[in-house]
Amino acid sequence: MNKQELINQIKLKKSLLCIGLDTDIKKIPKFLMKFDDPVFEFNKRIIDATKDLCVAYKLNTAFYEANGVEGWQTMSKTMKYIPNDIFSIADAKRGDIGNTSAMYAQSFFQKMNFDALTVNPYMGIDSVEPFFAFENKWVILLALTSNKGSDDFQKIEDKNHVKLYEQVISKSSKWADDSKIMYVVGATKANYLTEIRKKIPNHFLLIPGVGAQGGNISDVMKNGLNKDFGLLINSSRSIIYAGKDENFTQASRDVALEMKRQMEIYLG
Amino acid sequence: MNKQELINQIKLKKSLLCIGLDTDIKKIPKFLMKFDDPVFEFNKRIIDATKDLCVAYKLNTAFYEANGVEGWQTMSKTMKYIPNDIFSIADAKRGDIGNTSAMYAQSFFQKMNFDALTVNPYMGIDSVEPFFAFENKWVILLALTSNKGSDDFQKIEDKNHVKLYEQVISKSSKWADDSKIMYVVGATKANYLTEIRKKIPNHFLLIPGVGAQGGNISDVMKNGLNKDFGLLINSSRSIIYAGKDENFTQASRDVALEMKRQMEIYLG
Repeated sequence: MNKQELINQIKLKKSLLCIGLDTDIKKIPKFLMKFDDPVFEFNKRIIDATKDLCVAYKLNTAFYEANGVEGWQTMSKTMKYIPNDIFSIADAKRGDIGNTSAMYAQSFFQKMNFDALTVNPYMGIDSVEPFFAFENKWVILLALTSNKGSDDFQKIEDKNHVKLYEQVISKSSKWADDSKIMYVVGATKANYLTEIRKKIPNHFLLIPGVGAQGGNISDVMKNGLNKDFGLLINSSRSIIYAGKDENFTQASRDVALEMKRQMEIYLG
Repeated sequence: MNKQELINQIKLKKSLLCIGLDTDIKKIPKFLMKFDDPVFEFNKRIIDATKDLCVAYKLNTAFYEANGVEGWQTMSKTMKYIPNDIFSIADAKRGDIGNTSAMYAQSFFQKMNFDALTVNPYMGIDSVEPFFAFENKWVILLALTSNKGSDDFQKIEDKNHVKLYEQVISKSSKWADDSKIMYVVGATKANYLTEIRKKIPNHFLLIPGVGAQGGNISDVMKNGLNKDFGLLINSSRSIIYAGKDENFTQASRDVALEMKRQMEIYLG
């Protein structure tokens, strides 16, 4: 999906919502265990119940890998079930030397047909560049993450008081333009968004950490919106685990709808 | 495998060699294509031909993921084929928020039974800690990698001239001791090893980049050895792709043997 198509979807749905399918078999309603692939059955129902409310789905690959070969089958089936007009993100946080990153690109962009892949910047330009070769595919580079440990290294300052995540943004935004690259900025760091927007006014940002991790939609929208909307706001656990019984999808839909309504206020 | 067992294997075999099974189906001898799983057949033969010469095998997970579900099956079969007294490394460069890293630990340490996993430090302590919960399992944290892009961020200095990779080492070496954590230091950066050894005299280091990437075994040994040996020196492409025909394993063995001989000089 290219940038204009993503913007059009946001306009159409009046939503920036990205739903994280971080599906843990231990946390899904018990009645699903009678199906051949309970995680896929869960994902299918969540997608059916929320696809008119969100513009993106994000699959955290760890939750699928944890189930080995079967987990990869579930991820692949889920990916095929996501409608084509919804942006799909493999939250895999990959990044390796050039020939290896090229293999990851093949896996996620060609084999699985994801629109975007999250990438870790630590290894620098040659770990990121191979992903740019694919048309209408996106790198979502980790900048300032939503977790506590983001303080350990991401905020280290150089002698000019430039923090590491700022250097990641300023260097990498020269490697490819805003039609190829987005950045992860945690919702728990909404107060940093104003500064980040000065550096990259046109880029889309993927904002995890709303809901279970404590980030606030309103703060994110106030500080992060740009002329193209420029935000995908992700929530995983608070949506997908909202219900516990056979009607769990209604509970998930209710939470997703409430989040979308909070977004609509700022989307005019 | 615990630290003493690894040291014993090094003593026994007089080798620090780690062989990287970064197996690309496009690069293996053509006659293998007649087998059901050519990559597994290739790996099996490489393992048979080299297992007395090396103390570790490292599987770069990207090369398996690139083939989707079937690739994960190949990785799993290869992992089961590696003898138990050889240290096994999943070179996956993972790292995510706590609950996600816990899923990765389950995947690589429990489901697949690898001894060690390479981890990216960018997200800080809570992205690394979940891996420490597993007994006799190892985190191999990226410090200074072998690629060109390692200059982009890893060598950024703070106001006290401490480089990012040095901060990664000094902070993370307080999170767990040298029975749980190793570091990746590229062979192409052997001149940095003396300084790194001052900071962490007792830790094992995984050294990629010998061979195809240009690193030199002798430089690495001179600067990196410690009282426990403390080094695993990896080579991938220059060993596994040494031969092109039906006798390819002999060519691989010859290269591996030559590398082991260079190591023996320093292992006394």
